[in-house]
Amino acid sequence: LQHGCVQEATTELAAGVREADLIVVCSPVERIAAHVIDASTHCRDTAVITDAGSTKAATVRAIEAAFKTRDPKKMPFVGGHPLAGSEQAGCQAAVANLFEGRVAVVTPTANTTEANVAMVEQFWQSLGSRTLRMGPEEHDTAVARTSHLPHLIASALAAATPEDCLPLTASGWLDTTRIAAGDVELWRQIFFSNRGPTLKALADFETVLARLRTALETADSKLLAALLAEGKSRRDALGS
Amino acid sequence: LQHGCVQEATTELAAGVREADLIVVCSPVERIAAHVIDASTHCRDTAVITDAGSTKAATVRAIEAAFKTRDPKKMPFVGGHPLAGSEQAGCQAAVANLFEGRVAVVTPTANTTEANVAMVEQFWQSLGSRTLRMGPEEHDTAVARTSHLPHLIASALAAATPEDCLPLTASGWLDTTRIAAGDVELWRQIFFSNRGPTLKALADFETVLARLRTALETADSKLLAALLAEGKSRRDALGS
Repeated sequence: LQHGCVQEATTELAAGVREADLIVVCSPVERIAAHVIDASTHCRDTAVITDAGSTKAATVRAIEAAFKTRDPKKMPFVGGHPLAGSEQAGCQAAVANLFEGRVAVVTPTANTTEANVAMVEQFWQSLGSRTLRMGPEEHDTAVARTSHLPHLIASALAAATPEDCLPLTASGWLDTTRIAAGDVELWRQIFFSNRGPTLKALADFETVLARLRTALETADSKLLAALLAEGKSRRDALGS
Repeated sequence: LQHGCVQEATTELAAGVREADLIVVCSPVERIAAHVIDASTHCRDTAVITDAGSTKAATVRAIEAAFKTRDPKKMPFVGGHPLAGSEQAGCQAAVANLFEGRVAVVTPTANTTEANVAMVEQFWQSLGSRTLRMGPEEHDTAVARTSHLPHLIASALAAATPEDCLPLTASGWLDTTRIAAGDVELWRQIFFSNRGPTLKALADFETVLARLRTALETADSKLLAALLAEGKSRRDALGS
């Protein structure tokens, strides 16, 4: 309110959702399902509920299970995940155009209605994002590779750097470890809600890393160059 | 010359160094020693020669061995390594203030003169860098951890990301893999000239990564949070 970012604010869920057309739950992933279910008991029948959680399968499963006994056409939830943000937290770190030009994933299932999915897509598109539809499991498998594994790697790299070497870090180390500065509890929950796909992504990473290690150990110049070229071509496909 | 970056240019080493007071050799690491030795036969007796190579021990060893039979007081070389740059190459990627606020390592040995070391330090300081004196081996051990290992990790991460997942990459993946776009042959040479320290740094990284894997496999919430906190605190020590 002080910053002029919102017109109204409340810390009471019931009061916050009562008049809403669209409810976007942005809690840490382990709390999302409970907050969605709670919100659904206080909001209008026509309200649509979505979220911004980094993992989808466990959340979607828990919410849809809770709605199983109700009229399935009244299931108000559509999972969402805007692929934007930084290692910072809090409204001081807010960025007005955070979602411009980014991808927002929307995860319809057999239980969602097309009208609700379209409303959530329009919300993200109105903020400048491109939307992608994916199944919750398909989403989790992909972000394990593009988001969760990189975070794990960045954390390991930062933790493995001896303190007395820090004066010799430059932009390479700073870029590679940047996301390791992310909120610990937030990320612990993300990893825990996506352990299987993250472990699978880690195994594939370790296979590539082992080939790089072999190239170094055996001084295999050709293999090392081939592996570096593979990484470069995958990275070059995306630009800065 | 076209860009106004230099006043004179030549592709002939002998002509380029003949009148120089300070010679900065910026070849790929495997060529530096040969170019320094070559330059020393064409330059003034009073000229000082330094380099900008990412590894130091092999280069310094080769150069000092070549000067062993000459008057040791005439050894004109002092190793250097400015910790600045990007994944880009070529004069189109030039940045006028690239060295401002950065660290430049200078590697004196028993064979360098204090006057020459000071001259190289003053050169980097005149470009805005803070200079650090380290032994060549000490330098290589440290940059294996702060520069070469991060590059190896970034390459492995980029190569391990399936192409069909690239649309789901966001700033985390982009930051973590940025240096993987670096020149392949340049980096192949850097790794080859610093294989031992890089393999040691890799082993330590793999130890930390294995602990993270265990925390995920065993769903050890406390251990995972502790490891993430360790990475965060090391990263937070440096800012963005």
